[in-house]
Amino acid sequence: MSIRRTRPGRPRLVPPTTTSPPREQILHAAAQLFVTKGFAGTSTREIADAVGIRQASLYYHFTSKDEILAELLERSVRPTVDQVERIEQLAAPESPETALYALALVDVRTLAEAPDNIGLLATHPDVTSSEAFDAFRGIRAELADAYGRIARTAAPGVATAAEPGHLGDMLMHLVEVTTSLRGSGVPIHDATAAAIASTCLRACGIPESRIASAAASAATLLDDLPKNPGHH
Amino acid sequence: MSIRRTRPGRPRLVPPTTTSPPREQILHAAAQLFVTKGFAGTSTREIADAVGIRQASLYYHFTSKDEILAELLERSVRPTVDQVERIEQLAAPESPETALYALALVDVRTLAEAPDNIGLLATHPDVTSSEAFDAFRGIRAELADAYGRIARTAAPGVATAAEPGHLGDMLMHLVEVTTSLRGSGVPIHDATAAAIASTCLRACGIPESRIASAAASAATLLDDLPKNPGHH
Repeated sequence: MSIRRTRPGRPRLVPPTTTSPPREQILHAAAQLFVTKGFAGTSTREIADAVGIRQASLYYHFTSKDEILAELLERSVRPTVDQVERIEQLAAPESPETALYALALVDVRTLAEAPDNIGLLATHPDVTSSEAFDAFRGIRAELADAYGRIARTAAPGVATAAEPGHLGDMLMHLVEVTTSLRGSGVPIHDATAAAIASTCLRACGIPESRIASAAASAATLLDDLPKNPGHH
Repeated sequence: MSIRRTRPGRPRLVPPTTTSPPREQILHAAAQLFVTKGFAGTSTREIADAVGIRQASLYYHFTSKDEILAELLERSVRPTVDQVERIEQLAAPESPETALYALALVDVRTLAEAPDNIGLLATHPDVTSSEAFDAFRGIRAELADAYGRIARTAAPGVATAAEPGHLGDMLMHLVEVTTSLRGSGVPIHDATAAAIASTCLRACGIPESRIASAAASAATLLDDLPKNPGHH
């Protein structure tokens, strides 16, 4: 079944690279179908057809469609969450502003590189209402907590005014503009990522002069971080 | 068909009020089903069943499932966009900070009151990829433009640093945290709305002292606005 609803700037169904491992080919084809047709509107049969394998072979790699989406969704947050501890060790508490800038930057990059802009599905009702994605929601909550924790250290007064429990959610949402821009066909350049990270610091009431120095320190800090296997 | 996947804090299928106009009953039942089961996973038959009418009667009010979702989505942005002109007339250009605060506050309220948290579906692939929702995407782009235009007037220096074209998108995304909080069962109090609006101003580099006065002026301004028919 071919996909006719593609639009400019939307992911397109391209022939899968037959040299990638089958598991990766399945994930890639599924991501394209989920983002184009919706999760409920996609069958495992269609995913198998897109890869050019039989449905039985697909079930050798994944027990269900839920499991495929769960893995894809994890790839939109796991690479960021995996860096949180190192970022906090290297930057906070001496320079929580650098930590916040670095976290936002890593998060923008993860979302910009996640397969087929799968981050778009994070707030999808299928995902927020099914227990199959409890693990993903747990990782996402961990990320919101990290934003909140670092932001509270960076700007204690403002964090209280903006309700500690929600500041992390607000910053995470702000950074998720990445998926929306990407979905509209806007390329996520380094300047775009820097603008989003700077806006996060501004949202915490951090003045311009300190944002500039946080940006410089974050660049150094990220060079020191072990390369994330999810990035290329 | 009953819905078994409801979770704490999620919209629940409740018997429709038989005193509301049928069109409203259809919209309400559809919203609950779309948010719980996804758009692709819901049939017009199920919507008709939930209302207790025949499918033929549903088609008397709406020509398609797309048309139902389009109207629901419009209700998550139209009440805000309808206030933009008045907000800008009353506040900008003398006080663009007040205009931005007021816009964010009206937007939080619209999202907090939209039927069954339907704002959650705004970035849904079904919506972003189908031409049936071109009109909705147009109104949403209008809202992002308004955020950007007002923010540029409120903080011209910062707006340039944060790329003029994207500042509006970032602020709109930040405010959409409302749907995410609401989806997690967090009540959207006046204090929550104020925290989100203040964070928008901070994100534009506006200092605390001026945020406090913008909040006070915005309260007066909103009292002067004609009551939005979509609000209760």
